[in-house]
Amino acid sequence: MTLIASPVVPIRGRLRPLGLDEVTITGGFWAQRQQVNATATLAHIEHWLEREGWIANFDLAAAGRLPDGRRGREFSDSEVYKYLEALAWEIGRSGDPALEARFRAVVARVAAAQEPDGYLNTRFGRPGQGERWSELEWGHELYCVGHLLQAAVARARTRPDADDGLVGVARRAADLVCTVFGPGGIESVCGHAEIEPALVELARVTGDERYLAQAALFVERRGHGTLRDIEFGRSYYQDDVPVREATVLRGHAVRAGYLAAGAVDVAVEQGDEELLTALAAQWGNTVARRTYLTGGVGSHHQDEAFGDDWVLPPDRAYSETCASVASIMFSWRLLLAQGDPRYADLIERTLFNVVATSPSHEGTAFFYANTLHQRRPGAPATNGPTSNGTVSPRASSSQRAPWFEVSCCPPNVARTLASLAAYVATADDEGVQLHQYAPAAIRTTLPDGTTVALDVETGYPRDGVIRVHVREDAGTPWTLSLRVPAWADGARLVVPGAEEAAVPGTVRVRRAFRAGDVVELHLPVTPRFTAADPRIDAVRGCLAVERGPEVLCLESVDLAAASGGRVDDIAAVRLDPAVAPRAVDGAVVVRLRCAKTTTGPWPYAAPGTGAADDGEELEVPLVAYHDWAERGPSTMRVWLPVAASGGQRTDRIR
Amino acid sequence: MTLIASPVVPIRGRLRPLGLDEVTITGGFWAQRQQVNATATLAHIEHWLEREGWIANFDLAAAGRLPDGRRGREFSDSEVYKYLEALAWEIGRSGDPALEARFRAVVARVAAAQEPDGYLNTRFGRPGQGERWSELEWGHELYCVGHLLQAAVARARTRPDADDGLVGVARRAADLVCTVFGPGGIESVCGHAEIEPALVELARVTGDERYLAQAALFVERRGHGTLRDIEFGRSYYQDDVPVREATVLRGHAVRAGYLAAGAVDVAVEQGDEELLTALAAQWGNTVARRTYLTGGVGSHHQDEAFGDDWVLPPDRAYSETCASVASIMFSWRLLLAQGDPRYADLIERTLFNVVATSPSHEGTAFFYANTLHQRRPGAPATNGPTSNGTVSPRASSSQRAPWFEVSCCPPNVARTLASLAAYVATADDEGVQLHQYAPAAIRTTLPDGTTVALDVETGYPRDGVIRVHVREDAGTPWTLSLRVPAWADGARLVVPGAEEAAVPGTVRVRRAFRAGDVVELHLPVTPRFTAADPRIDAVRGCLAVERGPEVLCLESVDLAAASGGRVDDIAAVRLDPAVAPRAVDGAVVVRLRCAKTTTGPWPYAAPGTGAADDGEELEVPLVAYHDWAERGPSTMRVWLPVAASGGQRTDRIR
Repeated sequence: MTLIASPVVPIRGRLRPLGLDEVTITGGFWAQRQQVNATATLAHIEHWLEREGWIANFDLAAAGRLPDGRRGREFSDSEVYKYLEALAWEIGRSGDPALEARFRAVVARVAAAQEPDGYLNTRFGRPGQGERWSELEWGHELYCVGHLLQAAVARARTRPDADDGLVGVARRAADLVCTVFGPGGIESVCGHAEIEPALVELARVTGDERYLAQAALFVERRGHGTLRDIEFGRSYYQDDVPVREATVLRGHAVRAGYLAAGAVDVAVEQGDEELLTALAAQWGNTVARRTYLTGGVGSHHQDEAFGDDWVLPPDRAYSETCASVASIMFSWRLLLAQGDPRYADLIERTLFNVVATSPSHEGTAFFYANTLHQRRPGAPATNGPTSNGTVSPRASSSQRAPWFEVSCCPPNVARTLASLAAYVATADDEGVQLHQYAPAAIRTTLPDGTTVALDVETGYPRDGVIRVHVREDAGTPWTLSLRVPAWADGARLVVPGAEEAAVPGTVRVRRAFRAGDVVELHLPVTPRFTAADPRIDAVRGCLAVERGPEVLCLESVDLAAASGGRVDDIAAVRLDPAVAPRAVDGAVVVRLRCAKTTTGPWPYAAPGTGAADDGEELEVPLVAYHDWAERGPSTMRVWLPVAASGGQRTDRIR
Repeated sequence: MTLIASPVVPIRGRLRPLGLDEVTITGGFWAQRQQVNATATLAHIEHWLEREGWIANFDLAAAGRLPDGRRGREFSDSEVYKYLEALAWEIGRSGDPALEARFRAVVARVAAAQEPDGYLNTRFGRPGQGERWSELEWGHELYCVGHLLQAAVARARTRPDADDGLVGVARRAADLVCTVFGPGGIESVCGHAEIEPALVELARVTGDERYLAQAALFVERRGHGTLRDIEFGRSYYQDDVPVREATVLRGHAVRAGYLAAGAVDVAVEQGDEELLTALAAQWGNTVARRTYLTGGVGSHHQDEAFGDDWVLPPDRAYSETCASVASIMFSWRLLLAQGDPRYADLIERTLFNVVATSPSHEGTAFFYANTLHQRRPGAPATNGPTSNGTVSPRASSSQRAPWFEVSCCPPNVARTLASLAAYVATADDEGVQLHQYAPAAIRTTLPDGTTVALDVETGYPRDGVIRVHVREDAGTPWTLSLRVPAWADGARLVVPGAEEAAVPGTVRVRRAFRAGDVVELHLPVTPRFTAADPRIDAVRGCLAVERGPEVLCLESVDLAAASGGRVDDIAAVRLDPAVAPRAVDGAVVVRLRCAKTTTGPWPYAAPGTGAADDGEELEVPLVAYHDWAERGPSTMRVWLPVAASGGQRTDRIR
């Protein structure tokens, strides 16, 4: 059993993951966020888990006092497990003994609540509670077990010899799941996918094929109307179409992503090419038609779900933070299986524009939903409960909040950031592939015994030069592969003694590298206008501005400073596509015309009858989308109008 | 006590309503719908109320067998009451003895369930049920009483001498409400407004001022955080801001409309000009910023609520049918109070484009939500329950459905259609005002004793000529007022011997009319392009086509016939605003270019890099929005692109 300290370790695939002991992010954008995660976010999460009583639920269970006093929603156990997973990765990354002590303390409280047969859930199974496995649609029991397993997997891979007992707890829980839901057992699935990837990962860690078989059973059962129909339809939990027959992700976006990730895991472990091909096609269709510019997915508030193709309104974009984590899980597995750099492109976009957007700079407040157009400045986030004793509404998108009644996103971000180094690079028999660009130290051994030791130096994403220093001589040639993002038209590769164009995709340098060799990739990060497929009706006549992998936005505080105007009171921000956005002193500035409109009694009229005010021409700075809402309540928009509405100046539209 | 057979009979106001005995719709668009309502819809509703057990709940209550066997949601009693109200108006309109028998049969079953102290609700108050008035946020108890009262009011006004007992049932229920929620009682309100207008109407019918005082108490209590906070926020049930301090409608759109209607009733009866002025301003702001082109309101699926200003996406427009009924209730009350023809304009728009859209031509299937853009053809509506035993999801917008788990809309449409004649005309001391145009017979007596007898002859809305025939001589002058809709630029008034321009608003003809006099209003119903305020971002670069009061739409069946194209597969329907839509053989045809786009791997790109296909130029017929989805599953859009997306041909956008 190879225990690579990485979130996904398939038995086969195009690429082999590297562990946290092989890749370290040493500085820059992501190192700073990892630091905040380690020093502020993890403690913040534990504070709230205690404050809301979600860890204490396990104490009550151990003391036999449930259901009285239980607090939180039916899935609150899972937040404790995701917190443990985040701690495990962070301990693996930094070895912090204080975190190790916190980890062990929480594990002990969780373990004490496990029943002799392995059952572990604070919400079901006791007198006065629902029976075990009686509410598969909404009960989240298997979902909670899945997160327990993932915490244990993270621990096993980062501290294989630890004596805290978490892996044993997880195995007993998984064994019970296999007994209850295995052949001859309950022929159903969980309303919220998650147990599927978790069981495969536990099989990878333990070598126990029974877990893989159970995961495969769960994947195959879904899509046949196994669960009850609900008002949102069975597509909500992907129970409408079998996984291998589906053509696109649909329904609840987090559920869809977790299921797809688990299905890739099953396909890879079982060598099921048909299933893998189906999943890759689903990924492609989802990216082509159901994904926001930020990489975010899921446009519906009502059911936190994907919309139909092209339904991607920036207004009230839901784009749940957890759905972006699920998307990364899915993309990463396909990248390992197939090696296509497009998977890494989407991971990068999603990391910079959703995962980095959710937490505040201080790491103690979060977006649950990530809108692309905020029309009203929200009230400042409170650090206390609302007056009815619950915490912030999850879908409030105007301000980050410290915690939510449904608080899946903070620990999901935390576990992603703590394990982020694992997504930077991979290896194969020929060499090493760089997928994400950050200052990093990479050291691994190829199958032929060649040691690859690299230091990556870069100011990315603000600066487009990625400089790879080779630190050890190799006796034989190996290949350094570098991803060239799809947006990077005009990229250049500079190797000792040569320079060449690097077209989007992958560039490879193969040679017997010597210590001191430097390979440079120059990515053009000049700001650029981006337009949308016309079928995305909601952004018709608009342009966005991107810089490298970052989506930018116009925030009201900047517009107010420039003109006194409000983002929500602009008739038409008329940008001239002929005048490119430009970088000024590190900021990106666009030139636009800002015309206020007066409000008439009825907002519909014959074309050309609107106000004739040409507005004021301004240069306004944009901010990275991940930096918005850090300066108090504000309004914001990512998509900036270039065409007026049909109502105004249609004479100019033609 | 004057019992005018009309839904709203205020003690004072600019205009006096006419009863169903004074106005009859004699033919045309609305008479046809009234006929379908009478002959098909009412029986359909009763069939489903029986099938779902919602009437039987009263039988169970009377037999002391509840809560076992109770079916339906907590508000299912109200659907029975709305059905009774619809029957009462229809009996008042047509005198149909078969309906009279059905009415009495249902009333008897309802009355048998009333408890000795007046309490009447099948969901609360018995052992094994929630306690009376214990769940004011979501229990809908007072809401149900409100609909009971409205049914009784309709009965009292149309059959004042009936011995069925419904008015007595309602009075006992209302008396209990006044005792329980009056001064010294429970100081709260219902999570769903409705009791407010109902109590005022009952006061008008009975002369009992106690009901008015109680309604005023309910109106004043709301908005002070009286109810518990919820995830949607207290604005959901308008408990965020006191009614007289609010500036716009917000929260759940049906709740908002019913509350506003009740508040106007209170303001009018109590002579509270401050409150009335506040409500009129709320109406104005709501119409100016939060109303769809169809008159529909409420853009959110999640909470069936108003969005922020300008959030009016045609995609997944919610525009609940009941919210349009609530909007008409609010507008009609303001029209009676203040006389401004803008209120009648909105009523007309809402009637033609939401109320007429919801029911199928056969009157046996309904839209609950009324989207303005349907991207996928839905499955044909089933006449049976779905597999989990419930009926169609309410928010499915692709096909009308025979019934819903939450089935408020069918009986709401039925009561509106049955009482529709009451909205056609009013009177004041000077004469008669025509607000809605339909073939009609009107006969009333003015305070000075003058008899006004008119026959309206028109092919409206397809034809714009409204011909008013005076049928009796008047000894003294009186004034005939005709509404000129805001869209009717170029309207003409033709009176015996003269013709003049009729500017939007009201035109008046004052004279001592003689039998045989004819007054004609000529409204221009040539099809026209309409554009939106640029702040309605979701329809930027689009135009709609209207004809008279009707909104038109492009339906896929017509596009397929013309070109094989699909509405959901159009890159840009590029309409030429210089080429007006035109009427051809009674249909409206637009000339457009239809270019298909191929789907790339990522839907965002540099401006101008999209496909260069100029597409095919076509003439395509449009259908009235109220007629869509009558030819099988289809896709549809009201707003048609004129500008390409920023992604395509931005060179032409400037």
